[in-house]
Amino acid sequence: MDLTEKTLSSEVIYKGKIITLLKDTALLPNGRTAVREVVRHPGGVGILAIDDKGCVPMVTQYRYCMGKTLLEIPAGKREQGEAPFATAIRELKEEVGATAEEWVPMGSLIASPGCYDEVLYLYLARGLTFGATNPDEDEFLDMERIPFEELVHRVMDGEITDAKTVAAVLKAKILLGK
Amino acid sequence: MDLTEKTLSSEVIYKGKIITLLKDTALLPNGRTAVREVVRHPGGVGILAIDDKGCVPMVTQYRYCMGKTLLEIPAGKREQGEAPFATAIRELKEEVGATAEEWVPMGSLIASPGCYDEVLYLYLARGLTFGATNPDEDEFLDMERIPFEELVHRVMDGEITDAKTVAAVLKAKILLGK
Repeated sequence: MDLTEKTLSSEVIYKGKIITLLKDTALLPNGRTAVREVVRHPGGVGILAIDDKGCVPMVTQYRYCMGKTLLEIPAGKREQGEAPFATAIRELKEEVGATAEEWVPMGSLIASPGCYDEVLYLYLARGLTFGATNPDEDEFLDMERIPFEELVHRVMDGEITDAKTVAAVLKAKILLGK
Repeated sequence: MDLTEKTLSSEVIYKGKIITLLKDTALLPNGRTAVREVVRHPGGVGILAIDDKGCVPMVTQYRYCMGKTLLEIPAGKREQGEAPFATAIRELKEEVGATAEEWVPMGSLIASPGCYDEVLYLYLARGLTFGATNPDEDEFLDMERIPFEELVHRVMDGEITDAKTVAAVLKAKILLGK
C-alpha cells in the first residue's frame, strides 16, 4: 500500500526567529483530505564528548518552553547552509569551550516526526582540549563534567529526559563497549 | 546563578488540531528580554513490545512533515486528561492489535526542549496477545514484527532515526541485558 500523503495546499501561519508554522491540507491514501500541521525547524547537533578521565562536559540550561532547567549534552542549531559537522565543532567550543581531535558520527535523530521536522546529528568527540566558552548572547549555561558511567545511570533511572542526550549516552555506551 | 526566564507577555499565534503556538517575551537572567517561541503539544507514549519469540511489533507510517515513511515503535498522543499508561494500553491495541500482561515504565523523553514541549512516556511491554488493530480514521500503518537484536543493529547503524524508537530500543537492550 502506498502510504504517501500529497500536499493539496500549504499556508504559512507564522514565520519566526527559529521556527516556521505551516498549515497544510493533504490528500490521504484513502482519497480523503486532512489538515497537517507542520513546524519547520533548522535542525541541529548534539555532542557527547569524553575527556581523558572518562568525564563528559554537560550543560544545564533553562528551557523556557518546559519551565525548568534540563541537563543536556552540548547542542545547538545549524546556521543557514552550515554542515552538521561544522555546527558540532562550533557548538562544542561555544558551549563548553572544548575542541576535539577525534569525531565519530553517531547517526541522526528525528525529534518528533508527527508535526516537527527537526533533525539532530549526534557526534561522539574525544581527545578534548578545554579553553574559553563563547555562548550565544541570549544563552545562559552552567557547565560541569560528569563521569560517563554516572550519566548512563541517570539516563536509565529516568532522571535525564532530554531525548538527544538519552540517545547519545546510550549509543556511546554501546560504541565504547562500556 | 539563577537561570530562570520569566514570562513578561504571551501571545497565542495559532491554536490548531494538535499543536498550539505561543510567542512570548521573557525576561532573561541578565535583565534583557528575548522572544521565546513555544509549541504546545499534548504529549504521548511509545511502546517497545516484545513477543514470546523475541520480536517487536513495529509500524511504518508516512510522516507528512518529514515527507517520507519512518519505522517506529507503536506510539500515540495522549487524549485530554488521559494518564500515560492508559494511552499506552490504548495505542498498543489500536496500532498493532496487541494487549500485554507485563508493563515496565522506561521513563520519559522530552522530544526537543528548545521550542517544543512534547513529553513522551516510554514503556516496555511483554506477555503479548495479538488481535485486531483499530487505527485512527486518518492513520495508515504497515505493521511488521522485527527481531529485537535486528532493531538494535538498525538503531546503531543509523537506519532507525525516530528519537523515541532509538531511546526505547537502547533502554530496553540495557534493561533486558541483551
